[in-house]
Amino acid sequence: MSEEPDKDAAEQGASLDPADWEVLKRSFHAAIDQAIDHLRDIRRQPVWRPTPEAVKARLRVPLPRGPEALDAVAARFAADILPYGTGNLHPRFFGWVHGNANPAGALGEALAGLMNCNVGGRDHVAVYVERQVIEWCKEIFGFPASSSGLLTSGTSMGTVIALAAARAAQAEVDVRKLGMAASPRPLVGYASSEAHSCVAKAFDLLGFGQEALRAVPVDSEFRMSLPLLREKLAADRASGFRPAIVVASAGTVNTGAVDDIAEIARLCRAEGLWLHVDGAFGGLAVLTPEFASRLRAIAEADSIAFDFHKWLHVPYDAGCVLVRDEAAHRAAFANRRDYLAPAKRGLAGGEPWFCDYGPELSRGFRALKVWFTIATHGIDRLAETIARNCRQARELGQAVQGESDLELLAPVELNIVCFRFLAPGLGAAALDRLNEAIVAELQLNGIAAPSTTRILGRAAIRVALTNHRTTGLDLALLLDAVRELGRSLAASAPAAEHASVGTP
Amino acid sequence: MSEEPDKDAAEQGASLDPADWEVLKRSFHAAIDQAIDHLRDIRRQPVWRPTPEAVKARLRVPLPRGPEALDAVAARFAADILPYGTGNLHPRFFGWVHGNANPAGALGEALAGLMNCNVGGRDHVAVYVERQVIEWCKEIFGFPASSSGLLTSGTSMGTVIALAAARAAQAEVDVRKLGMAASPRPLVGYASSEAHSCVAKAFDLLGFGQEALRAVPVDSEFRMSLPLLREKLAADRASGFRPAIVVASAGTVNTGAVDDIAEIARLCRAEGLWLHVDGAFGGLAVLTPEFASRLRAIAEADSIAFDFHKWLHVPYDAGCVLVRDEAAHRAAFANRRDYLAPAKRGLAGGEPWFCDYGPELSRGFRALKVWFTIATHGIDRLAETIARNCRQARELGQAVQGESDLELLAPVELNIVCFRFLAPGLGAAALDRLNEAIVAELQLNGIAAPSTTRILGRAAIRVALTNHRTTGLDLALLLDAVRELGRSLAASAPAAEHASVGTP
Repeated sequence: MSEEPDKDAAEQGASLDPADWEVLKRSFHAAIDQAIDHLRDIRRQPVWRPTPEAVKARLRVPLPRGPEALDAVAARFAADILPYGTGNLHPRFFGWVHGNANPAGALGEALAGLMNCNVGGRDHVAVYVERQVIEWCKEIFGFPASSSGLLTSGTSMGTVIALAAARAAQAEVDVRKLGMAASPRPLVGYASSEAHSCVAKAFDLLGFGQEALRAVPVDSEFRMSLPLLREKLAADRASGFRPAIVVASAGTVNTGAVDDIAEIARLCRAEGLWLHVDGAFGGLAVLTPEFASRLRAIAEADSIAFDFHKWLHVPYDAGCVLVRDEAAHRAAFANRRDYLAPAKRGLAGGEPWFCDYGPELSRGFRALKVWFTIATHGIDRLAETIARNCRQARELGQAVQGESDLELLAPVELNIVCFRFLAPGLGAAALDRLNEAIVAELQLNGIAAPSTTRILGRAAIRVALTNHRTTGLDLALLLDAVRELGRSLAASAPAAEHASVGTP
Repeated sequence: MSEEPDKDAAEQGASLDPADWEVLKRSFHAAIDQAIDHLRDIRRQPVWRPTPEAVKARLRVPLPRGPEALDAVAARFAADILPYGTGNLHPRFFGWVHGNANPAGALGEALAGLMNCNVGGRDHVAVYVERQVIEWCKEIFGFPASSSGLLTSGTSMGTVIALAAARAAQAEVDVRKLGMAASPRPLVGYASSEAHSCVAKAFDLLGFGQEALRAVPVDSEFRMSLPLLREKLAADRASGFRPAIVVASAGTVNTGAVDDIAEIARLCRAEGLWLHVDGAFGGLAVLTPEFASRLRAIAEADSIAFDFHKWLHVPYDAGCVLVRDEAAHRAAFANRRDYLAPAKRGLAGGEPWFCDYGPELSRGFRALKVWFTIATHGIDRLAETIARNCRQARELGQAVQGESDLELLAPVELNIVCFRFLAPGLGAAALDRLNEAIVAELQLNGIAAPSTTRILGRAAIRVALTNHRTTGLDLALLLDAVRELGRSLAASAPAAEHASVGTP
């Protein structure tokens, strides 16, 4: 190990850092400005456009061996990648439940990339920022100060973590050591038939098995039926199962239905069950005056998982899980070896470490983009975007009901509107195909991007309003386009598509 | 839904977008320039400094209700957050196994935040970028074109995903539906006693139970003992267990030991076991001429998990899992409902969807920072940083062996050097405390940040070289500081610390 300064300078030059930092800054400015211009002009762009075959081909090249100038790489990004995104920056993106991001959050993400913190543990500021964000979340949902939390990639991982805590707390043996097969009575859980698929995926991943998640039928408003939940609980107990977990939905993905969380919480307390709330998007409607009363009971849950990247518009990906019983949460994950031993002083301090609350040891500084988003806009303004989307959904639902060629397929509870175009003379299957074609055409023409689902077996055009850019004009334009496309597609449909009897 | 243009303009103004996009650009430039300056001047900064109590207090405020100007938030970031990071940007950060990021990767992360793609599925360019990155990874590890992969938060999640695929493939029943308790013979797996704790955590999470992971003792070079693996396999079969999985380490976290992957692969093939390789950091040494021959057998594994955020210096977090049998991978996770139905045309096309290969439905555009990193530097230059770190580790090991007051505690196989300072007259426990104190002082004084571990029960100063900024001078400075601190701490140690007999 030589100590001549010259040799060291040469060695420093071998790093991945730039030769000229001012040139680097200019590269950042230019590339970021292009991405900001793209965002500024988004209304003039199609909502979505297919990725050209030539671009796909340029993204199928062998592993590059030699270097390329950063500006050249950024130019390729601007030409081949920037224009062909998911579409969810656009004011007329209504598909699935996607947030739109916000510039403050994006700046937080950019700075996190430059800071490069590993927030698995240890004593550094990123840990304190994540704790701050978690405290804010406890405040939002009325969780006690003694509860714990973790930022996650989203509600899917949050659900896995919450149900792992539930599993460890509810099991009659040490399942962490002994596995799920050691349980004397099989653990089972309950969610409505409208619950998100991530709940069944978590039951699968954690080794309960998907069949251990009982699907409780819903009422006419797509909410979990409490009488049928009670029936299933009794039947399972009688058959030797151990009911352990109920998952309530605060906003189902199909229709935005909110289960009766207060009543389910009472039942869970009485029966000793772990109540988890899937609040992926809808949970945050607790911030609005209109929905606060219906969602306030989330505060009584044992855990909740929700997303920042949906209705708080933090850039993807960012979610959170809160667990009422910190000890139960930690007991489900803590497992450190010698090389991760904590220290009283120095960088290895900072207990508790986040890696003891989830499956990940290395963790990015996801909290920074959430911190930037909430600090810049303030929660009141973020809440107002949520309230506005709910108002827009209600108005859209009313507009649908006002047109004889449109049919509302589910009550508008929160921010989701499921409807279809009706064409005289089309049978059920043809009507399904027609509405699916309308959605495909809306997307392919770049007009709007709703998604599809099935409501009571019928194909629905599904409009989810988690979009801070959407205006009334955007929704009027959507309805006009649906009806126009519906009429023209129905007119050009082959004769065989038309039902042979009983229609005018 | 009114259509007057004025009303729409007002509604557009209600979004979370800025009133003036040029002002926004200036905010980005200023904040990013500060973070770049911090990086440029990193050598003049302490490796680590504790977060001041005043800063911690400012990160314990109630949920902000009102807005704050983005520049003001960025100024708070620059004052309170930027200086107090994990330390792993610094050339003398040697703790755990942390990468240092690179500016090109950070630019990719910034642009991903602005694009806000959700890469769970659908047909948009981010999907093609992630596929490109996965193809490059297959090329690096010699995996077949027919294999599958997924970008993850890191090796911990990659291990969960790989072992979930192994579980579904090896089980004698449909464990996804029926759960782990339905297995007629309990599934068990094997890893060396030096394997990373994420393997046991995965066995826990997936419901095998940690005891189902058998710890195979290591040889004198800390590699899994093949004869003892065979013994354990035979004993388990005789006792009615079903051996299902072997996890080989390509670079253990304690000492960087590489298991004999080729021999383990032969055994796994012969015995019908799933071979997973934990290549978190060490796997990528396959890119270097020196280690290629020892690591090439990774190509024979059924799965490998590894990190981009360690030795490829992609900003946190970014890892990857590859699975040889795409169908087995998909069969372990696919589970889509009506609202996620694929379409032949439009945005809902793009099969296969990444959400069918892992637990997450919403997924960020993590691939972009990897793509930027590899495209800008080229894999040859990234490989050279890996090779340089291994040379540095070897030289550091030799330097340790050249000093009578230092003791090397494990062979230097890859990039990790475990050693300790020796002080005459100190007993075993006092020597452990002394070396832990040396590491704490190195960190607290901002000189260097190695971490600690235990090697055969003895406290070790552990230097992991996954640092593209480290030079020979940095390592010389480290050794000087260790010896100086060691002498001064030993001199000031209370008399009781000194062993009463048998030392000069």
